[in-house]
Amino acid sequence: MDITKDHPIYETIRRRRDVRSEFTGAPIPDATLRRILEAAHSAPSVGLTQPWDFVVVTATATRRTFQEHVAAERRCFDDSLPAELATRFRDIKIEGILESTVGIVITYDPARGGPHVLGRHAIDDAGLYSTCLAIENLWLAATAEQCGVGWVSFYREAFVQHLLALPANVRPVAWLCVGPVSRFQDEPDLERHRWRQRRPIEDAIHYERW
Amino acid sequence: MDITKDHPIYETIRRRRDVRSEFTGAPIPDATLRRILEAAHSAPSVGLTQPWDFVVVTATATRRTFQEHVAAERRCFDDSLPAELATRFRDIKIEGILESTVGIVITYDPARGGPHVLGRHAIDDAGLYSTCLAIENLWLAATAEQCGVGWVSFYREAFVQHLLALPANVRPVAWLCVGPVSRFQDEPDLERHRWRQRRPIEDAIHYERW
Repeated sequence: MDITKDHPIYETIRRRRDVRSEFTGAPIPDATLRRILEAAHSAPSVGLTQPWDFVVVTATATRRTFQEHVAAERRCFDDSLPAELATRFRDIKIEGILESTVGIVITYDPARGGPHVLGRHAIDDAGLYSTCLAIENLWLAATAEQCGVGWVSFYREAFVQHLLALPANVRPVAWLCVGPVSRFQDEPDLERHRWRQRRPIEDAIHYERW
Repeated sequence: MDITKDHPIYETIRRRRDVRSEFTGAPIPDATLRRILEAAHSAPSVGLTQPWDFVVVTATATRRTFQEHVAAERRCFDDSLPAELATRFRDIKIEGILESTVGIVITYDPARGGPHVLGRHAIDDAGLYSTCLAIENLWLAATAEQCGVGWVSFYREAFVQHLLALPANVRPVAWLCVGPVSRFQDEPDLERHRWRQRRPIEDAIHYERW
């Protein structure tokens, strides 16, 4: 009866991690990178707008400039923390920008699809949502390809916009560090470092209303 | 060499559709629904906040009330269209609220994780992004389970908030119609109805900078 419970997608979803430390720096074959980007590009999107773009960054100079910005933002967050949290934060690695093989920046263009986007008139963020669906497709495809993905979010959008020469109306949504890894951790990093524990699913499910 | 190119996740990503017309209304076994929700709950999230919740709606009265609201929003969008687009829009079904087996509403709680969310100090939308990653996990797991998913976005957030008694700070992000389907269409509905064509991936990929 229950033949789908062992579908390989569940194993991929379970193994997926937000990778910081396990990148090997080994090359990603072109065909693999292409499949990962095609997976992202196959995501659902509001009004079939496909409002995302992918900027593939390999240049060390660009990545180093970004990393310095991220380090400054790390200090900014650090300064906002009470002492006990600051101590726990100290040991947590937040990016693998240079150790990973490639950076993939996913952007959102609100103008894609023109003035009459089907499904967006009442929810302005719907296009941003579509872009995130593409990111998760990319992440799972990479995991299936034995590549790690680490989402770096310690940055100001204007900085990345300028660094990558994005058009003025295009927003960076994610800087993903991508590449082969030595292993996937069994637990999320933030759980191993006792920053935060995962929430039981029972707390997240409601029936009929909240 | 290239053993991962046939990973079943690619077939699932390709088959996935935004379903409106093919719902059969057949029941979803409890274990299946559970696996789909667990897939969503396993998504990555900023600062391990898991800021999503799932409201499972089966009551016909609730779904009918929502459907009436969606119909009014459809008219609102229709009124905004130039004549040629309005004609094309007329034949496009935008929801399967009552024909699907269940509604799953995914919400976002910005307060989850307290005042010091790791990875969100510079990007306020990061928690909203996490919620969308959960939605795509749900969508792909459902597809692997031969269930269709249709994202309805013709609604005002305040209406759904009131209908489902969401706490004041909790935002509905998606109303998903979920259930077994007679088939998955080969092409997206909006492409079949000549609303919009898919964009070549070549146009979406940039190297080093835009």
